[in-house]
Amino acid sequence: MDGPAGIGQRIVAAIRQRIETGLDGPGTAMPSTRALAAEWGVSRTTVTAAYDQLIAEGYLEVRQGARARVAPGLGRGKAGPPAPPPATARLSGFGQRLAALPPLPAAGMDGLLADFRYGELAARDFPRMAWRQAVTAALLRPPGVLRYGDPAGSLRLRAALQGYLWRARGLRCTAEQIIIVNGSQQGIDLVARLLLDPGETVLMEDPGYALARHVFAALGAAVRPVTVDGEGMRTADLPPARLAYTTPSHQYPLGAVLSATRRRELLAWAARAGAHVIEDDYDSEYRYDIAPVPPLQAMDAPGDEAGRVLYLGTASKTLSPTLRLGWLVVPPGLADAFARAKRLADRHAPWLEQEALAALIEDGAYERHIRRARRLNADRRAALLAALSRHLGDSVMVEGAEAGLHVLAWLLDVPAGREAALVAAGRAAGIGLHPVTPLYAEGVPGRVGLVMGYAGLEVAAIERGVGVLAGVVRAVV
Amino acid sequence: MDGPAGIGQRIVAAIRQRIETGLDGPGTAMPSTRALAAEWGVSRTTVTAAYDQLIAEGYLEVRQGARARVAPGLGRGKAGPPAPPPATARLSGFGQRLAALPPLPAAGMDGLLADFRYGELAARDFPRMAWRQAVTAALLRPPGVLRYGDPAGSLRLRAALQGYLWRARGLRCTAEQIIIVNGSQQGIDLVARLLLDPGETVLMEDPGYALARHVFAALGAAVRPVTVDGEGMRTADLPPARLAYTTPSHQYPLGAVLSATRRRELLAWAARAGAHVIEDDYDSEYRYDIAPVPPLQAMDAPGDEAGRVLYLGTASKTLSPTLRLGWLVVPPGLADAFARAKRLADRHAPWLEQEALAALIEDGAYERHIRRARRLNADRRAALLAALSRHLGDSVMVEGAEAGLHVLAWLLDVPAGREAALVAAGRAAGIGLHPVTPLYAEGVPGRVGLVMGYAGLEVAAIERGVGVLAGVVRAVV
Repeated sequence: MDGPAGIGQRIVAAIRQRIETGLDGPGTAMPSTRALAAEWGVSRTTVTAAYDQLIAEGYLEVRQGARARVAPGLGRGKAGPPAPPPATARLSGFGQRLAALPPLPAAGMDGLLADFRYGELAARDFPRMAWRQAVTAALLRPPGVLRYGDPAGSLRLRAALQGYLWRARGLRCTAEQIIIVNGSQQGIDLVARLLLDPGETVLMEDPGYALARHVFAALGAAVRPVTVDGEGMRTADLPPARLAYTTPSHQYPLGAVLSATRRRELLAWAARAGAHVIEDDYDSEYRYDIAPVPPLQAMDAPGDEAGRVLYLGTASKTLSPTLRLGWLVVPPGLADAFARAKRLADRHAPWLEQEALAALIEDGAYERHIRRARRLNADRRAALLAALSRHLGDSVMVEGAEAGLHVLAWLLDVPAGREAALVAAGRAAGIGLHPVTPLYAEGVPGRVGLVMGYAGLEVAAIERGVGVLAGVVRAVV
Repeated sequence: MDGPAGIGQRIVAAIRQRIETGLDGPGTAMPSTRALAAEWGVSRTTVTAAYDQLIAEGYLEVRQGARARVAPGLGRGKAGPPAPPPATARLSGFGQRLAALPPLPAAGMDGLLADFRYGELAARDFPRMAWRQAVTAALLRPPGVLRYGDPAGSLRLRAALQGYLWRARGLRCTAEQIIIVNGSQQGIDLVARLLLDPGETVLMEDPGYALARHVFAALGAAVRPVTVDGEGMRTADLPPARLAYTTPSHQYPLGAVLSATRRRELLAWAARAGAHVIEDDYDSEYRYDIAPVPPLQAMDAPGDEAGRVLYLGTASKTLSPTLRLGWLVVPPGLADAFARAKRLADRHAPWLEQEALAALIEDGAYERHIRRARRLNADRRAALLAALSRHLGDSVMVEGAEAGLHVLAWLLDVPAGREAALVAAGRAAGIGLHPVTPLYAEGVPGRVGLVMGYAGLEVAAIERGVGVLAGVVRAVV
């Protein structure tokens, strides 16, 4: 700060402060450049530059040939009455509803022997080499001009996904029906904003994905819980609504596959009610004993303007939740509305991740990786199921193990009232336990169930963790 | 598709189709596994697997020891009355307002001699080596577990930004006040959702950034235009409102610096009205003749609960618009609400870009890059101003050239009615021209002004483009 530029800035700051504090009031003439230059021991050029900056900032004014003066309206106490005492900011209805929602569980933490938190993936599963190559290749071949991209996502990625969704899920759509979103969370948010007005009804699986329910509740919609049983969401006698949220391939968290009868009932209801259905296909890549169940979207009218299903896929369970990459497949008549909403929300998804995922899909690396991840997670699942059976025997009942990356373990011997004690004792013993209770909107079950994710854990940690769990269960019963 | 798995899937598909089309109604018994195995020439294991899958999908049911049957409620016409004729989907109020907004200009295109579209950057300015190193380093040191991150953004990046904002902008805040967003667009959207209810008033610079106005209008707010002159937004006698949007460092698009008097007036108004002010500091890194003007946020009560300014910065003008990285600095009392809203919107910003930017800021590469980009853009700007003067002389009046990456060029000889002809003739001659008119909400100027961005163009293209522009002007006058 001691070259000419530094001194110039000190002059600017000094004059600014005199004005700010009211020492030099509005209209006060500044010293001539010659006088000020002498005073500071700098050239007149430096002083002129300082005055120019203060003029640009509006502190000073100058008329042709005259000396610079403090601008009218400046100086202490000139800008209206003093500010009122600090008040907390008033939030919008959305903000207030959001603040009133129950807090979500804290983020995962390191240092536990085994944290059975759902949604985490082992970093060593990540296809690091393939991803790095794809990222490097993208960075080496940038477009000539960096500009905002297509709000719906890069056409290259959408074309690659179109093929992938057909191969992997039997899902038929055009690239124009695909909107690249920042993970399924943004997909749910965009659907809610575009199709749901405050006060309108949305049907939500109960128990179900809490952050979807929060989106609807924060928007001011009436969230109506729909009971889930062994065949998934109960679709008989659904009330009129604008929207329904469902996880038909593997109900989250209970794990049922929505039966074909209910799929038809749900689609017929949507057609009658003029409603839409969000199909959150969050983990369908993982299926262990049977082939993947086709998506609800494939039973709908794919490509038809009257399509009712908004299909949602994600890379959060196949690659990483930190990528923030997902895809919405919408009926053709809604594609433009979604592209507009995405542009308004954040212009478009980041370019680099889109390019890298497109490259991985194009050269088959994505599907090879999924096959590998499926094998790794099949091992983890087998270890979890075996350990639960070995350590807890008849006192545990497991649901939803056929697919996905979590199971629901009902601890039949633990009284419902001891749930908090169980979690605390588990934490003290080094394991993270996550009860299903917070995922219920109503009708909390009278027993203790744990959502046990295993994709972030090694087999050894799973086995040790379940051993610790068995001890903790005995201690709190 | 011709291994055992392939044939199994063909069996599944065949049975599914018989049920779907009503050939096999509810309750129809399936052939024994032995019979079907003989019919298809496969093992009984393959048939059993196919039946299992159809059971999981809900097409078939089976009771202990009995043959598989089509599930009750399945078959043609069983799922309620036929769907009504296709109807266009009914959008929410948000969706309808969004659809009614004027379309935005189409995305930029290649192949023009010179496109003066604002917001584009030359790819060769991008610090490709430094970015690639930072990205590779991040990919080589992933966390042990891949999990959702902090909704407000990585603490590493927020700490780096805190230092950067202080050094570069004299902006004081804690890391907790910073929320990493997907570019300033998402920042504006989050502010609007959290602080503005439908029907409430928001003040918007006029002319101003169209996508901000669209956010407010789509939300259902009453957008009140505030005239802009040579000192920026006119802040005397502002009406009551909940929110104001302003670009004080370099008004977009006219280029004025908001004067110190007006800054004070605006803050005093916000305190009186209990309103907040979005300070969109979108291009303050670029300033050519004078030092950067301190942000409005620094005149507010930084760190105070009663702070009124929501400061918004972006990497879209320094690195690339394709990264989708920006930052909001909010008063401490609002930080939690913003983190919650960000989590609801899309969980958090992508990890890789956050890590890479943090690394660039930490080792000084970001600020070195900005200095380089400033020099490159100073050259482009000088070329543009010289060419405009040389080719158009007194028939052009340039505003807002002191800062940023665009100027406003008023074409004094072109009648307002010839604007569309000018753009069309420009396009035909190979140059992209972008009138300021669409940025006005009311009071469209009676003359033709062009927003001329230059950061995506090389000096030679700028000079040729202006030469072509001069010819086009002569042709349409």
